[in-house]
Amino acid sequence: MPCQRPANQPIFLGVVGDSAAGKSTLARGIAAILGNDRVAVLQADDYHRHGRAERRQLNLTPLAPEANHLDILEQHLCLLRRGQPILKPVYDHATGTLRPSERLEAKPVVIVEGLLAYHSRGMRDCFDVKVFVEPDESLRTSWKLARDCAQRGYSLDEARQSMERRAEDSAAHIQPQRSFADIVVRFAPTTEDSSLLDARHLLRPTLAHPDLGPVLDAGGKGGFQLALARDSDGKPVDMLDISGRIEPRRAKAVEDLLWSLIPEASHPRAPLGRFTDTEGQDRTSHSLALSQLLITYHLVKAAFGLAPR
Amino acid sequence: MPCQRPANQPIFLGVVGDSAAGKSTLARGIAAILGNDRVAVLQADDYHRHGRAERRQLNLTPLAPEANHLDILEQHLCLLRRGQPILKPVYDHATGTLRPSERLEAKPVVIVEGLLAYHSRGMRDCFDVKVFVEPDESLRTSWKLARDCAQRGYSLDEARQSMERRAEDSAAHIQPQRSFADIVVRFAPTTEDSSLLDARHLLRPTLAHPDLGPVLDAGGKGGFQLALARDSDGKPVDMLDISGRIEPRRAKAVEDLLWSLIPEASHPRAPLGRFTDTEGQDRTSHSLALSQLLITYHLVKAAFGLAPR
Repeated sequence: MPCQRPANQPIFLGVVGDSAAGKSTLARGIAAILGNDRVAVLQADDYHRHGRAERRQLNLTPLAPEANHLDILEQHLCLLRRGQPILKPVYDHATGTLRPSERLEAKPVVIVEGLLAYHSRGMRDCFDVKVFVEPDESLRTSWKLARDCAQRGYSLDEARQSMERRAEDSAAHIQPQRSFADIVVRFAPTTEDSSLLDARHLLRPTLAHPDLGPVLDAGGKGGFQLALARDSDGKPVDMLDISGRIEPRRAKAVEDLLWSLIPEASHPRAPLGRFTDTEGQDRTSHSLALSQLLITYHLVKAAFGLAPR
Repeated sequence: MPCQRPANQPIFLGVVGDSAAGKSTLARGIAAILGNDRVAVLQADDYHRHGRAERRQLNLTPLAPEANHLDILEQHLCLLRRGQPILKPVYDHATGTLRPSERLEAKPVVIVEGLLAYHSRGMRDCFDVKVFVEPDESLRTSWKLARDCAQRGYSLDEARQSMERRAEDSAAHIQPQRSFADIVVRFAPTTEDSSLLDARHLLRPTLAHPDLGPVLDAGGKGGFQLALARDSDGKPVDMLDISGRIEPRRAKAVEDLLWSLIPEASHPRAPLGRFTDTEGQDRTSHSLALSQLLITYHLVKAAFGLAPR
């Protein structure tokens, strides 16, 4: 029996993964579906302990737990969960420096994006839905080089060196958090057209997933598939694959079905599936849109204690 | 029967009063007596919501509650009281701007200096000992003009205008907090020698004050007097007056007696009673030293649940 939540306790979504894994892109669409005024987004990168120059001197990457105020992040998650505002630190990615702190008010939904937000038991216990994003590595590399050079003032060489320095910390500290996720999302370029994204979802039994039977029928065999599989750790999972080449008509039918499962879907349809490709072009991906809707379903379900349909 | 405190719960001292009332000067000596490594000092000015320029645009003084993150200050006091570290905002008085946040670890004693730290019930409940500092207004004016010009980049005219703008907010928000204090300290220039400080202490019955009988004998009638009096609100108080002209020999005898009441006094004697006069000269005041010792007695008593002697 799902219990009623205490009034005013926000719903917490975690979106964790390596840098440039698409965390913000995924979160942005979910916030748009729920209504941006009802969502507080906390970027855990703000809890970096040092500026970029200081990290270099200390020979630390931002992926190292000790390079972050993780105890304070945990404290702030607990405060937000109790509906309290926080005064949070600010890390400016454009310059790689620390900035004056800023208020963040709790909202009905709190989305926490970060490298290490599942690092401690105390943090993990705050989340209602835990997503881990692990794109195909070649895709992540393209995204990261494009973003670091365009928005963060790195030269291409610096961005490449930064990725190499980070690889060890990523394996030691980021990847192990995958095992705590309810949903692992893997984006990969579609084989036939690398400008499209395939989206694979490992749906762990830690959440009650919706009955996707009607969705599968609507999606058709080509674009939308659910299969029983074993995860890399040998454990059983449902594996939901959405092809980047899913026909728009099919995608629309699946979207409609997912919207019908979300009782809060009274507001105008948000522009879902938006992302920026490695050329800097704004694009729309049906598979990304469906990922965003599926995750939103779980948030709304957590908020209202809906029985799975 | 005094109860034992929970282990690791810091002792909280509040030092509240208008700007340039001598809060830091008083607190500095107390921290030195207890050992600086065992004391965390939190300056509530760090919770100013705006920089100086922005306050001017908004026509706000820093004494207005809404010009401060008081809810966050209360939250941080509660966290420190539970022994947790905080990441606190930073206000730079030298430039009047907000700076990146900084960690503050809880210590066995936490001293909170500020304009508005008794503003809410939640904040007041955090303190073991609440001191309110209200110097003679002519003295405060000299201190404030001297400091604002020397350390905070104000011209003399700007500093004067700032005091005028603040007077209304001081009456509305700072002065009313006086009624919550256990001890009200009033410094005034000694009549016969304005380079010396007289210190008057209103000792409210909210704390169990030490038996000052032996102290009074040691101090002699000229320099150290205790009298039953009525406060400005008509309520009965003990009024302890320490003259700036107390003879060094007498002051030393009183200091020795107060030290003997502080069981933690095993560490080397700290340089007490240090202050900077309005000419910028470093001076030592016996009356200030005795104030610092008296307040420290109460902190140690709160820590160890000592019965009053």
